[in-house]
Amino acid sequence: MKASQFFIATLKEAPADAEVISHQLMMRAGMIKRLSAGIYNYMPMGLRVIRKVEAIIREEMVRSGAVELLMPLVQPAELWQESGRFQAYGPELLRLKDRHDRDFVVQPTSEEVITDIARQELRSYRQLPKNFFHIQTKFRDERRPRFGVMRGREFTMKDAYSFDRDKDGAAKSYDIMFAAYKRIFDRFGLQYRAVAADTGAIGGDLSHEFQVIADTGEDAIVYCPTSDYAANVELAEGIALGTRAAPGEAMVKTPTPGKSTCADVAALLGLPLQRTVKSLVLATDQLNEAGDVIKTTVWLLLVRGDHDLNEVKTGKVEGLKQGWRFATASEIEDHFGCKPGYLGPVSTKKPVKVIADRTVAAMSDFICGANQADFHITGVNWGRDLPEPDLVADIRNVVAGDPSPDGKGVLAIQRGIEVGHVFYLGTKYSKSMNANYLDENGKPQPMEMGCYGIGVTRILGAAIEQNHDERGIVWPAAIAPFAVVVCPIGYDRSAEVRAAADQLHETLGAAGIDVMLDDRGERPGAMFADWELIGAPLRVVISDRGLKAGTVEVQGRREAQASTVALAEAAALVKERLGA
Amino acid sequence: MKASQFFIATLKEAPADAEVISHQLMMRAGMIKRLSAGIYNYMPMGLRVIRKVEAIIREEMVRSGAVELLMPLVQPAELWQESGRFQAYGPELLRLKDRHDRDFVVQPTSEEVITDIARQELRSYRQLPKNFFHIQTKFRDERRPRFGVMRGREFTMKDAYSFDRDKDGAAKSYDIMFAAYKRIFDRFGLQYRAVAADTGAIGGDLSHEFQVIADTGEDAIVYCPTSDYAANVELAEGIALGTRAAPGEAMVKTPTPGKSTCADVAALLGLPLQRTVKSLVLATDQLNEAGDVIKTTVWLLLVRGDHDLNEVKTGKVEGLKQGWRFATASEIEDHFGCKPGYLGPVSTKKPVKVIADRTVAAMSDFICGANQADFHITGVNWGRDLPEPDLVADIRNVVAGDPSPDGKGVLAIQRGIEVGHVFYLGTKYSKSMNANYLDENGKPQPMEMGCYGIGVTRILGAAIEQNHDERGIVWPAAIAPFAVVVCPIGYDRSAEVRAAADQLHETLGAAGIDVMLDDRGERPGAMFADWELIGAPLRVVISDRGLKAGTVEVQGRREAQASTVALAEAAALVKERLGA
Repeated sequence: MKASQFFIATLKEAPADAEVISHQLMMRAGMIKRLSAGIYNYMPMGLRVIRKVEAIIREEMVRSGAVELLMPLVQPAELWQESGRFQAYGPELLRLKDRHDRDFVVQPTSEEVITDIARQELRSYRQLPKNFFHIQTKFRDERRPRFGVMRGREFTMKDAYSFDRDKDGAAKSYDIMFAAYKRIFDRFGLQYRAVAADTGAIGGDLSHEFQVIADTGEDAIVYCPTSDYAANVELAEGIALGTRAAPGEAMVKTPTPGKSTCADVAALLGLPLQRTVKSLVLATDQLNEAGDVIKTTVWLLLVRGDHDLNEVKTGKVEGLKQGWRFATASEIEDHFGCKPGYLGPVSTKKPVKVIADRTVAAMSDFICGANQADFHITGVNWGRDLPEPDLVADIRNVVAGDPSPDGKGVLAIQRGIEVGHVFYLGTKYSKSMNANYLDENGKPQPMEMGCYGIGVTRILGAAIEQNHDERGIVWPAAIAPFAVVVCPIGYDRSAEVRAAADQLHETLGAAGIDVMLDDRGERPGAMFADWELIGAPLRVVISDRGLKAGTVEVQGRREAQASTVALAEAAALVKERLGA
Repeated sequence: MKASQFFIATLKEAPADAEVISHQLMMRAGMIKRLSAGIYNYMPMGLRVIRKVEAIIREEMVRSGAVELLMPLVQPAELWQESGRFQAYGPELLRLKDRHDRDFVVQPTSEEVITDIARQELRSYRQLPKNFFHIQTKFRDERRPRFGVMRGREFTMKDAYSFDRDKDGAAKSYDIMFAAYKRIFDRFGLQYRAVAADTGAIGGDLSHEFQVIADTGEDAIVYCPTSDYAANVELAEGIALGTRAAPGEAMVKTPTPGKSTCADVAALLGLPLQRTVKSLVLATDQLNEAGDVIKTTVWLLLVRGDHDLNEVKTGKVEGLKQGWRFATASEIEDHFGCKPGYLGPVSTKKPVKVIADRTVAAMSDFICGANQADFHITGVNWGRDLPEPDLVADIRNVVAGDPSPDGKGVLAIQRGIEVGHVFYLGTKYSKSMNANYLDENGKPQPMEMGCYGIGVTRILGAAIEQNHDERGIVWPAAIAPFAVVVCPIGYDRSAEVRAAADQLHETLGAAGIDVMLDDRGERPGAMFADWELIGAPLRVVISDRGLKAGTVEVQGRREAQASTVALAEAAALVKERLGA
């Protein structure tokens, strides 16, 4: 490809609304162009990356046995009503009416349509397992679209759906997809982690997010550097830190005027924060059939002073599964006789249910609020000073340094950007939509489903968040818009340079290498800056001066120095460097 | 590809709503699956054809210098308001509101968005010409979607848009696209014609439709078998048939009771239909600023009795360009003193403007209505019996046998399906949306535009309408879902058959041939019927009986007999047959 037959449009400055580096660089490199909030034109340079990402995904999906089809964008509301999502999905679902006033949606995903296909096409156990995928435009009407392709409204996604006879089959399909995703992300050339994720209402452990590692990522990834444990922070299991020692101190009420946080109390008392216990008050409401509250229970949740409550885990605790809320100020006053900041489990005004985090249950001689303004108590011990907690549960976020739940080391935490998700769906859709197959006995059974997504356009943003420097993007070669750029200096005035550049362009192209020849005749500085911004992995500079010595310069995007090589060997070196 | 890793779902019967053969066969072959009226799932078998069509289009577009990008599906109404199309486009434009109640459309085409891109990105004459294309889902909310992918609501289209400095440049861009389209349709392996089409308000001759020839086509294509003249019937020029002879008969009023059509009159009088003249009465209204009619003009249009009025051409006649309508019964009575069926140009009750078709103006001794119920007059002659017509114009549809307008033969007519259109847009969008570039003198000039569409999914329907038989589809090899299918008989029970089939599958696959191995273990009859329905261009049958003699059978989809060839030579024969 020659630049004159392509469209290169770099910008010196990113628009003001580009908050994150990937958005700024994609705009500056001319990869995307904003049409409306969260809706982008994919310009030629960006589309090349998208196509490469799609091609890798498609190859590995097919290799795994999945079959490609294409489901429509505009989908009839009837199916979404069958699954219940037409009502349940929030305003992110773009609903519309056709000319006959019938309801439709623009698909955010295609569970309903694929289930509709499956219930018509997959009638017998002999046809299972089956995995269908498509790569298609999606729309989610985000309230506040931002970060370019990272949180857009219109985006491209690969979504796959597996159908199996039973749970064992579904687990096998899941494993096959998991392996395919690893191959896909390996081929992208990105640093990533597959982290265990919450399965929500379904339960089980068949949910993994594929996270691209980036300091700017929104998600915290918990992993063990000495084992293969990895989970997102919502799921990562917190182990009790230490075991409970025998009481060593007497319980003492201590004035802590104005010190309402654990950190302030620890500082005032000159004790480690790890000796304190944080109190959080929740409430659950029991309703009658009319929806009126007939009973409210107040819960006191305790985590160590340096720990944070994990709301996802909290929702899984017995008694809180049906839904919980933070208690109101008056409920707290009513049960503790005290305002927040000085609460604790010792001698509450009215009975509350106490849930201690595993680590809190293992503490002794700890410090907590005295249920009296401006007072805390020290030397508190379970059993001696207060009853054992009603429940002990894992309700905190893990922190770096925690023991790994697999017992094989300690946990570390890094930031990631979620770009893929494999998920066991169970029979949620097959039951609500009557997607049954006939088993060996001719008996109808609901199909067990899994769904598997990759955010195609989001990959671009994540790749850039991970791979950039002050000059621009640094694409991995597999998904770069061009693997190598030939930059001739004086293409428009030196016949020797032109001949050498044309020849190298042709040689590399014939070898199947995705080569760009910048024949625009730009000055070297501007030309190099463009390709550093765009992020071509490899650059070959051809100049009259070099040609006099029979050489050209080859330089990797991350390299500080170019290698000087004989013109005749340049193609071979490029191929070698690209592993082609 | 093996059938067990793919999805084959043929049907014995097409659904009742499938009216045309392509729709029936696509449903039966499992290529599409209806989701809603005019909205289809593209099933794996159909998607393969779509991808091949897209790949050919993409290659030739890039070869022609066009640059691919991707514009969004959901587009803000503001741009459509700028161009005026938000109001002007009928209910086929799918309009919707986002969660913030802002207006959007689902794109039926992308003139507005590409013009918006161009006015921002193409600032200088140095950047022109430029041609951008994308292959994207489109939506047109057809009132009555039907014929499967031939007139769907959601469909895939390639649309390209060229930008030039001036009209000469636009004509060059047009020619380049015209040539690219010819390469594309040649590669599809379809019989087609590029026919001149009407340019509507823009004028000029830069509009061609690419029509796939099919007896079932909706459009009439006029062409000259002995020259390269081709036009659609709206545009094809009608030449005067004959030249006017001197009067030979006296004008005579003849009773023709109850004979109100030219055919009936000719039969009654025992004269050729070509001697009669048909009268059609139109009206034009002149309005004042308030929109009230201040003057109505009545027009009498005359075509030969065996000819039909062409309404598109009629709209181009001086005096009718601003819009015309058929006259009302009372206007006719008022001007002719007579009801339709017996009207004519001789002695009208009130003056009317007479427009004669070129052929009518060349007639003598003709027959027309007498402006008296149940009477016609014969032996009518221009100049002698009535004044020369006010206007002579080409206002009829041409018919087979007419002289070709290029003087190189006579016209023939065949049916076609429009699947592509190249069109010179001029400055319609660039002027309404202020898409200017700066010329050499730094002066802003509107860009000259062209647009170029191919209905990707429609190609499938058109190809099938052209290529099918009583057993199913007959795909051209270039766009067949699989170029060759290997059909082993007894794959599940004969080790020899299995080994030979696997080997051939592997050999052909390694040679880059798109081969399908049907490893389902179906009975031969069912297996063959499936692939004849699906339309694989070439079939290789491997059986124990053949292998005993060391042979397999190779048969083209249109061939009545298979060729028996040595197993060792099968791959070479397949390659040769496919031209690979």
